[in-house]
Amino acid sequence: MTNNLKQSIGIGLMGLGVIGGQVARVLTDKAEILAEQVGCPLVLRKVKVLAQDLAKPQAMEMGPQLFTTDADEFFAEPEIDIVVEAIGGESPALEYLKRALSGGKHVVTANKEVIAKHGAELLALAQQHKVGLRYEASVGGGIPLIAPFQHDLVANKISGIYAIINGTTNYILTRMARDGVDFSSALSRAQELGYAEANPRDDVEGIDAAYKLAILASLAFQNQVRPEDIHCEGISRLSSRDFQYARELGFAIKLLAIAKQDDKSIEVRVHPVFIPEDSLLAKVDGVYNAILVEGDLVGKVLFHGQGAGALPTSSAVIADIVSAAQDIVLGVGSRARWKLEPGKVIKPMSEIETRYYLRLNIADRPGVLAQITKVLGDHQISISSVIQKEADSVAQTAEIVIMTHPAQEKAMQQALEELRHLTVVKEIGNFVRVEA
Amino acid sequence: MTNNLKQSIGIGLMGLGVIGGQVARVLTDKAEILAEQVGCPLVLRKVKVLAQDLAKPQAMEMGPQLFTTDADEFFAEPEIDIVVEAIGGESPALEYLKRALSGGKHVVTANKEVIAKHGAELLALAQQHKVGLRYEASVGGGIPLIAPFQHDLVANKISGIYAIINGTTNYILTRMARDGVDFSSALSRAQELGYAEANPRDDVEGIDAAYKLAILASLAFQNQVRPEDIHCEGISRLSSRDFQYARELGFAIKLLAIAKQDDKSIEVRVHPVFIPEDSLLAKVDGVYNAILVEGDLVGKVLFHGQGAGALPTSSAVIADIVSAAQDIVLGVGSRARWKLEPGKVIKPMSEIETRYYLRLNIADRPGVLAQITKVLGDHQISISSVIQKEADSVAQTAEIVIMTHPAQEKAMQQALEELRHLTVVKEIGNFVRVEA
Repeated sequence: MTNNLKQSIGIGLMGLGVIGGQVARVLTDKAEILAEQVGCPLVLRKVKVLAQDLAKPQAMEMGPQLFTTDADEFFAEPEIDIVVEAIGGESPALEYLKRALSGGKHVVTANKEVIAKHGAELLALAQQHKVGLRYEASVGGGIPLIAPFQHDLVANKISGIYAIINGTTNYILTRMARDGVDFSSALSRAQELGYAEANPRDDVEGIDAAYKLAILASLAFQNQVRPEDIHCEGISRLSSRDFQYARELGFAIKLLAIAKQDDKSIEVRVHPVFIPEDSLLAKVDGVYNAILVEGDLVGKVLFHGQGAGALPTSSAVIADIVSAAQDIVLGVGSRARWKLEPGKVIKPMSEIETRYYLRLNIADRPGVLAQITKVLGDHQISISSVIQKEADSVAQTAEIVIMTHPAQEKAMQQALEELRHLTVVKEIGNFVRVEA
Repeated sequence: MTNNLKQSIGIGLMGLGVIGGQVARVLTDKAEILAEQVGCPLVLRKVKVLAQDLAKPQAMEMGPQLFTTDADEFFAEPEIDIVVEAIGGESPALEYLKRALSGGKHVVTANKEVIAKHGAELLALAQQHKVGLRYEASVGGGIPLIAPFQHDLVANKISGIYAIINGTTNYILTRMARDGVDFSSALSRAQELGYAEANPRDDVEGIDAAYKLAILASLAFQNQVRPEDIHCEGISRLSSRDFQYARELGFAIKLLAIAKQDDKSIEVRVHPVFIPEDSLLAKVDGVYNAILVEGDLVGKVLFHGQGAGALPTSSAVIADIVSAAQDIVLGVGSRARWKLEPGKVIKPMSEIETRYYLRLNIADRPGVLAQITKVLGDHQISISSVIQKEADSVAQTAEIVIMTHPAQEKAMQQALEELRHLTVVKEIGNFVRVEA
């Protein structure tokens, strides 16, 4: 039923931080063009904040009557049609989202953690209450990434996703590659610039990327992929030497979030990879994000843009608000669904197959390379190239870099274990997977 | 009103060429997953073809009762809800589209020429008859490009579009850049590979790109931009020398479709440009397409993928069919609108401002450069760099390459006219605009 009686759409905003504040500004500044898109005005009815937010200049300007620090008061406001959650984190956001959906409110959220961990449950709740749950801003800032899977690529069977979806780590890796600095000084610089938080663990260890990958993979593969299903390695063990060798070999190093599916299983992992330096993903610099999607009809499509920040994220949040409001005006209830097909298993990390880059510190004497290549050969790992790098004549050690052909992770891990026990191997400098 | 009574959605397909044939195949092969998306099956009810198509193996397989060569018979079929036009070209497609919309059918088309020339009229007709007109496949094959402007970027004021939207010319330019071959041999190769048609005029002269730019600009700027509003230059006057100098100067040469707007005017043009070789657009190779969009909130977003071909185009057509079918099931009528705001003017080409690359063949004797730079200076064109290239001692000529600072097109054209009349200037080798 087209809701011709609707005079306005009421918005309830939760959170007045960087994202929430910007969303409130856009709702005011662009009120006219948004009303035109929807067919009636979008009116901010209530803003749930923390006590400390009340003193913010923006809050003062908007007028105290709009604000409450009390969730009960917020949810008691009858004129709210759409709840916009811009709090972030799991708690209390999850509880608020459930409360909003159960109360028959359409929901828009930018919260990757809640959607990654509880998306299936929340979408079921939305369907039950015939409302929409939208989360475009949870991945990739303003880059359209959720909508393509829900609409534009709907005819495709998606075989793979290859994504740079954490700007902090991409900034750090870009600096390490360009300036030859080590991880810790690149991290410090990122912190100075506000690209990395004081506690950078979630970004640096790949956890943030894993949340986003869980969302994308669940949507693309129609199977619930949980954050804990994702093999996750961060970037802190990369050294400037790895970047130097990568460059010599024609590769860039990126933290990739990778999801693939075949008929039986789903492969999901976040870790540093070597990628060919002439690939588009290798050109993604600084805090930018990019997502490469492979579908059976569309082939390879790449989306590139700013993956974070108040303005880009508000672009996605507002688009979701407009879409929810249009549905309300048109009388459309829930469209939300992660149609989850049971049956596919998550492929154990030990079973994945990739090429590998290995950097070893070895004793600099005859016969050592033969011992090392024998270990790899015993595990069916064949070598595509070996480069012996500078020797240290005092310590009588040398560094070698080995690139392998595709091998199984399990075999590689066993080989690494054996290599570690060879007396001629002084140190496993690093090993990094390679994606073509 | 939700149309709960709908047991199936009837599809009428016009055209069984490369695109139409592929759409028919996907409708059959993916019937189950499409039905799931829509909530009921999509059933092909009638296919309008030319007589020669009836003998195609695909037509034989699908069964003769589905086919008609008679438009009247096609439009008399009562069970068609959605008309899919895959004929291409202006006539008779335009007439068919009008007939379908006037008959209350939702329409999906891949026809850039009709949408570029008659989009506003057709969308008004769709609105009048409360049906949808969808045209995602008209630009950029399977890359989502129409949907982002209609939905995802709706909160943005779009300031610029920079697009490589013709695969044929991008293939030719890629070969010229990589292999150092001239235009005509790169074109021949493209024709051999089926990337260029026997009559390549529409692609090579930028006409195809101008159709697509007219669609994107109309949508992004909410102002009707017609193909004839677009300044259009092709790639045939580029020589291998230009590519050589571009590389030396740190640029790539691409055929860009450019649209910009300011408060008063819209600038739309298709022509070869120098772009910095480290920009993402410079990395777009072969038949790939890419579109860079600049919005006030989202910043720069880039979309990259296969811009043509049966499979990618069918991805977009099917997505539009599913979207139309969902609206039918939900009881939603027309959403189609190019909200056209009157008032903005198309900026005359003479008023645009860019940097320029100039290649001149000059007499090789003292004082010549002074004469040339004086002409440019007289027209307020300041020079950023001059390189004198190889001299021909027999002809006593030399080639010089000049890069200018930003200058007005009118000034540059007047300067070129004067340069042409200098006796020391043997030939204007080429001039190409530069985009940063």
